[in-house]
Amino acid sequence: MERHFVRELEALKTNLIKMGSFVEQGIATAIRSLLERRADLAEQVISQEQRINSFEIEIDDAVVDLLALQQPVATDLRFILAASKINNDLERIGDHAVNIAESALQVANRIPVKPLEDIPLMAQTTQVMLRDAIDGFIQRDTNLCRKVLASDDTIDNLNKQVFRDLVELIRKQPETLEESLELIRVSRNLERVADLATNIAEEVIFMAEARVVKHHQAD
Amino acid sequence: MERHFVRELEALKTNLIKMGSFVEQGIATAIRSLLERRADLAEQVISQEQRINSFEIEIDDAVVDLLALQQPVATDLRFILAASKINNDLERIGDHAVNIAESALQVANRIPVKPLEDIPLMAQTTQVMLRDAIDGFIQRDTNLCRKVLASDDTIDNLNKQVFRDLVELIRKQPETLEESLELIRVSRNLERVADLATNIAEEVIFMAEARVVKHHQAD
Repeated sequence: MERHFVRELEALKTNLIKMGSFVEQGIATAIRSLLERRADLAEQVISQEQRINSFEIEIDDAVVDLLALQQPVATDLRFILAASKINNDLERIGDHAVNIAESALQVANRIPVKPLEDIPLMAQTTQVMLRDAIDGFIQRDTNLCRKVLASDDTIDNLNKQVFRDLVELIRKQPETLEESLELIRVSRNLERVADLATNIAEEVIFMAEARVVKHHQAD
Repeated sequence: MERHFVRELEALKTNLIKMGSFVEQGIATAIRSLLERRADLAEQVISQEQRINSFEIEIDDAVVDLLALQQPVATDLRFILAASKINNDLERIGDHAVNIAESALQVANRIPVKPLEDIPLMAQTTQVMLRDAIDGFIQRDTNLCRKVLASDDTIDNLNKQVFRDLVELIRKQPETLEESLELIRVSRNLERVADLATNIAEEVIFMAEARVVKHHQAD
């Protein structure tokens, strides 16, 4: 029984790692489809939503089974509850990848309005945050997770900057309206992904230190 | 012990109901602040974010305690897990109320660009969905929850319509740009609230019928 439980916990962790890297790949591909104007890549991200949903259901079922059949306590219980929340966060990140891919599709056939600088920077920072949050979970590394928390403000500021710049651009060149609106949407979606990576990092710290960081961060 | 457990379960339910009506109120007030151009109401919604976060942490703690100390099975376990997810959904709805209030603040001192029709309709429909999802949870009424699921498409279509209309408006009257962008943001936030109400309804159906509706809806 005990050995069986350990095996099931490991399987849960492995599935979350797989889902994490799948979702991470989704964000990377969605951004690439935007930057390289590749509708085929955007379609690929959109078509993979179903697979992320299947991951989520599978992990959720494993969580319910573990709780119902094994009645875990203490560290294991915290791990399972964290896994359940991270699962939910990852699924939502997958949704944002789809949103970004949809925007990429909208602009795929247009001439770019301007060379993009802040959005690639946001995308890069967000992807590092997501990677660190997932690695932090795998290695129970709270330092890595605190690094994620520290980056959240950077992304918020970039998002505001992108919004201001695009409003200015629409004003000067009204013909860029449709594309600019999609870019604003991409920027907001990246900001939400950064928020969710921050959530994951908070969950890991909670799991490791058994205290709630969420909504309690100093500055 | 048994009686203690029942009391704790009831307390969890009561707290979720309180949080639900608080969040519902947040959305209603945010929309009112937008429609009546009342910065004071918008500020009120923004200042209540902290209280919603406290609710979330309190409910989360109760969930962990119940799972750790009582080791519930079957129906009770499903109820507690649903409560945990609904808690998370409600907190996110609270975030959207804040986003809407922020947009309301941005436009509070402007002359309205046009009489709003679709956004009030969206707001009304979304609020009914949220109310029904919460009532469905309280009464374990899966019919009410299925009603929520059926409304989700209406909101998606309204959101698309609002977007198209506002793009058209910006094109014809570029001076409406800033306000129109805020209205697009409000519309997207309402669409997300409707999604989350749908999530809650799905959780209740799952809890009541022990099967996953999520990602499996017919059309």
